[in-house]
Amino acid sequence: MTPRRTFKETLAHIIFDYNTVPAKLFDLFLIGAIVLSVIIVMLDSVPGIHSAYGGVFYGMEWFFTIIFTIEYGLRIYVASNKPRYMTSFFGIIDLLSILPTYFSLFFPGTQYLLVIRFFRVLRIFRLLKLVKFVKEGEYVRNALLASSRKILFFLFFVLVTVSIIGSLMYLIEGEAHGFYSIFEGVYWAIVTITTVGYGDITPQTILGRALAAFLMIIGYSVIAVPTGIVSAEMASMNEQLHREIAKIDTCCRVIEHDHDAKFCKKCGEPLKGSAGPSSGKEQ
Amino acid sequence: MTPRRTFKETLAHIIFDYNTVPAKLFDLFLIGAIVLSVIIVMLDSVPGIHSAYGGVFYGMEWFFTIIFTIEYGLRIYVASNKPRYMTSFFGIIDLLSILPTYFSLFFPGTQYLLVIRFFRVLRIFRLLKLVKFVKEGEYVRNALLASSRKILFFLFFVLVTVSIIGSLMYLIEGEAHGFYSIFEGVYWAIVTITTVGYGDITPQTILGRALAAFLMIIGYSVIAVPTGIVSAEMASMNEQLHREIAKIDTCCRVIEHDHDAKFCKKCGEPLKGSAGPSSGKEQ
Amino acid sequence: MTPRRTFKETLAHIIFDYNTVPAKLFDLFLIGAIVLSVIIVMLDSVPGIHSAYGGVFYGMEWFFTIIFTIEYGLRIYVASNKPRYMTSFFGIIDLLSILPTYFSLFFPGTQYLLVIRFFRVLRIFRLLKLVKFVKEGEYVRNALLASSRKILFFLFFVLVTVSIIGSLMYLIEGEAHGFYSIFEGVYWAIVTITTVGYGDITPQTILGRALAAFLMIIGYSVIAVPTGIVSAEMASMNEQLHREIAKIDTCCRVIEHDHDAKFCKKCGEPLKGSAGPSSGKEQ
Amino acid sequence: MTPRRTFKETLAHIIFDYNTVPAKLFDLFLIGAIVLSVIIVMLDSVPGIHSAYGGVFYGMEWFFTIIFTIEYGLRIYVASNKPRYMTSFFGIIDLLSILPTYFSLFFPGTQYLLVIRFFRVLRIFRLLKLVKFVKEGEYVRNALLASSRKILFFLFFVLVTVSIIGSLMYLIEGEAHGFYSIFEGVYWAIVTITTVGYGDITPQTILGRALAAFLMIIGYSVIAVPTGIVSAEMASMNEQLHREIAKIDTCCRVIEHDHDAKFCKKCGEPLKGSAGPSSGKEQ
Repeated sequence: MTPRRTFKETLAHIIFDYNTVPAKLFDLFLIGAIVLSVIIVMLDSVPGIHSAYGGVFYGMEWFFTIIFTIEYGLRIYVASNKPRYMTSFFGIIDLLSILPTYFSLFFPGTQYLLVIRFFRVLRIFRLLKLVKFVKEGEYVRNALLASSRKILFFLFFVLVTVSIIGSLMYLIEGEAHGFYSIFEGVYWAIVTITTVGYGDITPQTILGRALAAFLMIIGYSVIAVPTGIVSAEMASMNEQLHREIAKIDTCCRVIEHDHDAKFCKKCGEPLKGSAGPSSGKEQ
Repeated sequence: MTPRRTFKETLAHIIFDYNTVPAKLFDLFLIGAIVLSVIIVMLDSVPGIHSAYGGVFYGMEWFFTIIFTIEYGLRIYVASNKPRYMTSFFGIIDLLSILPTYFSLFFPGTQYLLVIRFFRVLRIFRLLKLVKFVKEGEYVRNALLASSRKILFFLFFVLVTVSIIGSLMYLIEGEAHGFYSIFEGVYWAIVTITTVGYGDITPQTILGRALAAFLMIIGYSVIAVPTGIVSAEMASMNEQLHREIAKIDTCCRVIEHDHDAKFCKKCGEPLKGSAGPSSGKEQ
Repeated sequence: MTPRRTFKETLAHIIFDYNTVPAKLFDLFLIGAIVLSVIIVMLDSVPGIHSAYGGVFYGMEWFFTIIFTIEYGLRIYVASNKPRYMTSFFGIIDLLSILPTYFSLFFPGTQYLLVIRFFRVLRIFRLLKLVKFVKEGEYVRNALLASSRKILFFLFFVLVTVSIIGSLMYLIEGEAHGFYSIFEGVYWAIVTITTVGYGDITPQTILGRALAAFLMIIGYSVIAVPTGIVSAEMASMNEQLHREIAKIDTCCRVIEHDHDAKFCKKCGEPLKGSAGPSSGKEQ
Repeated sequence: MTPRRTFKETLAHIIFDYNTVPAKLFDLFLIGAIVLSVIIVMLDSVPGIHSAYGGVFYGMEWFFTIIFTIEYGLRIYVASNKPRYMTSFFGIIDLLSILPTYFSLFFPGTQYLLVIRFFRVLRIFRLLKLVKFVKEGEYVRNALLASSRKILFFLFFVLVTVSIIGSLMYLIEGEAHGFYSIFEGVYWAIVTITTVGYGDITPQTILGRALAAFLMIIGYSVIAVPTGIVSAEMASMNEQLHREIAKIDTCCRVIEHDHDAKFCKKCGEPLKGSAGPSSGKEQ
């Protein structure tokens, strides 16, 4: 803690930073409170526990909610760019994490939505200085983003397929076998093509089972598509990364290059080592 | 809209193109009508809703069918190459999207097949100018086509495997445990090897369960095969694509290279363009 | 058909070859008979159909069995290398395809094993001149063989995991919830880790469900392992293939190589074109 | 066996090594005893078998436990580095393999934990001189380790997702449909997102089924992520391995190369070895 800071600056540092002892303690306390409050919400939903400790839990819920409300207020107060914080991912999550308790005064039951607080624990990655973890997150996110269009296109086809096969199934099996409407048929088709297979609605006729078998074989084959897309994307990323690492030890350091050369004229490697001086002489 | 066009040309433009306001509005209206009509068909299959609004839905169904019939007629009328449109993917879908309503006059129930209209929404990709989306579709399709023979071969083996294990299961478990015939055995084997696992037919004997466990482990391992095939194919495609993109911006043509240069000293690209003359001076 | 052949040679040609009209017709007839006989076996297992057409099916089964027995005899008779045929994949399948009918005289029910005949249809790939299909089969087989050790090692770990978690589950849930012995526990663990999930045996206690959730998350992660192994293997194969194709158009044809050169000294490509003459001058 | 060894050395050799006949026999006997003892534990859990042979099994269990206890004592006695053995993977497994029988004197039922002995069979890979198998294990382990952070990050997101969707499901479906508390909701969400799909708890309302369908589609897409991560990692490893293997047989060191050669004209390998001297003469 640097003593020169104003109170507001110190507070901002403790709340938003994570590299000094007080800031770490604040984050640790926060994560503990979040996990504890989520566990309380979950336990409170168990009828036996609720009837015994419902009162205690109700008090603790309000205790945590008031603490988190104060914290949310402080975050807005100390944020240098208030609108940016309030519209950021964590800003929205912070708000959503306190609203359900207030709503539960008017709409009983909504307090269970408090589990959204769990998202706040993502801050733990920051606390643990697991910057690398954040990198991994970005890696996964980038791979998913890069393949999102392909996956969306693919999902659209899946949607059309389950609609048509679900309707056919409704025609074939009918209400007698649990297919009360096309919606049940589509639900069954989704349960089947994703290989979840609850078994709460299943075809009973020969024709229905043949169609189901067809859908399963289809699902078996097409499950390969999103996997293939993401795998290929990640392999590309890995390769790029490896190539960058591989370029470190090149022969280019011993050859005398032209002053305007950016790549070794013998091996084609970019001349990173000589980039500094030569870049100054760029024409 | 260019005023010089004849009425037929203007109509053809509105119906088949998608880059002016009237053409876009037409497509938008069409997609809205398709989605609405599919929702009506689905809702109409719910018994409670049908008894209340069946009459309204019946009218709307005919309304949409007549509109789509007129649209289909117009498409044929304005198409420059009528047989090509009628035998194209969208031409066939357009026809199949109106037939079920007419058929339902003679065969009640077939109107549920109207969900095939959903395929027409694929036109949305055109409307949104998501040409890139179409590219993604081609990407997925190409990867699937390129690996289709391998997957077919693989599916044939799966088919033989489920036939033989299904027959064995019928012998082991018998009618007492729901395996009424070999068909139930094969159906069970497909449900199991695809990891859907409804649980409507399950082995009860020790031997049956051992065989089931064997089949599951097999399924667990072989699910890797189609995924591996498609992943490998897509990785190849990605690599090719990346290589092509990397070659777009080469400055190599405008720079004067040393006579012994094999790579552009500016951008590191292999000097293909100058390979001809310089190779002649090679010693 | 070349008229010079002896009767035995002509027979051998018709039975084992597939590139003339009589040989093709023979294969076509054979495949039709196989598919028909398998369908009959399957239909005969349906109680209703059996009671109505059991007699007809019994006759047809013997008819096909006798035909296939004669065919098997002829194959041995005309084979140039009898023991090799009899111990080959198709030789064993051919024998196994007729034995069940004879066995069924002594052990009723074994006739259902006749579906093993289905394997004989693999010959269809030969008939359709789908040599490429055979290649695809080799591709899949090679990729599986190359990764078989890794997969075996992996399966051993899966086996140990399901044994231990199955035993724990038996301890936790006990007979009251369907876990009558450790075997049921292991069966349940296999059903769960492979994501089949019949639901015939499921945990009911909190602790049991927590362990089940743990096993599912594990299964979710490890399903990636065999897929990753096979994908990586296939990607390597694809790359090798592409590299071979890419090497066709090299600069090496225009350079004058040393007479003892096997690789272009400029680009490192193998000198295929000059391999013929230069190999004769090898020292 | 070298006669010069002391008794302790000979014993250590037999117990820890695996390349002479007595050492192999010891390992073989050990593995046989392990497998037999595990089968006995499993059989003893079957009620019918237990009532008939419980006494015999009880005796055999103690017999094996005493043998394994003596073996464990000997291993500690002959180990050159006692603490290292006792804290090694196999040292801990060896201890855990005998404890349950002693514990079962005080806590009946714990003897079923003896299946942990199964892990000791991993020694079989050593016996079969399948050093390559060990390599494969390392390969799989390395690929999993290299991607563990990415997978952990991914699992955290899955955990938060199932918590929130499980809570929503508890709100939507309620106790009437088996969702007695949020824990059942989370359990159901895990069963669904991993595509296990027991079907013991399933949504019954329209809204619940819509949310379930959403979760399944999500699960369908995200199952691609761990697979993609591991596949990409293994592809990288394979590539590295292939590159290393390709470099083993280079003849390039013994041939006299042209001064301008950058690749061996015999084998096509890049001339790394001669890069030093030749690069000095580079212009």
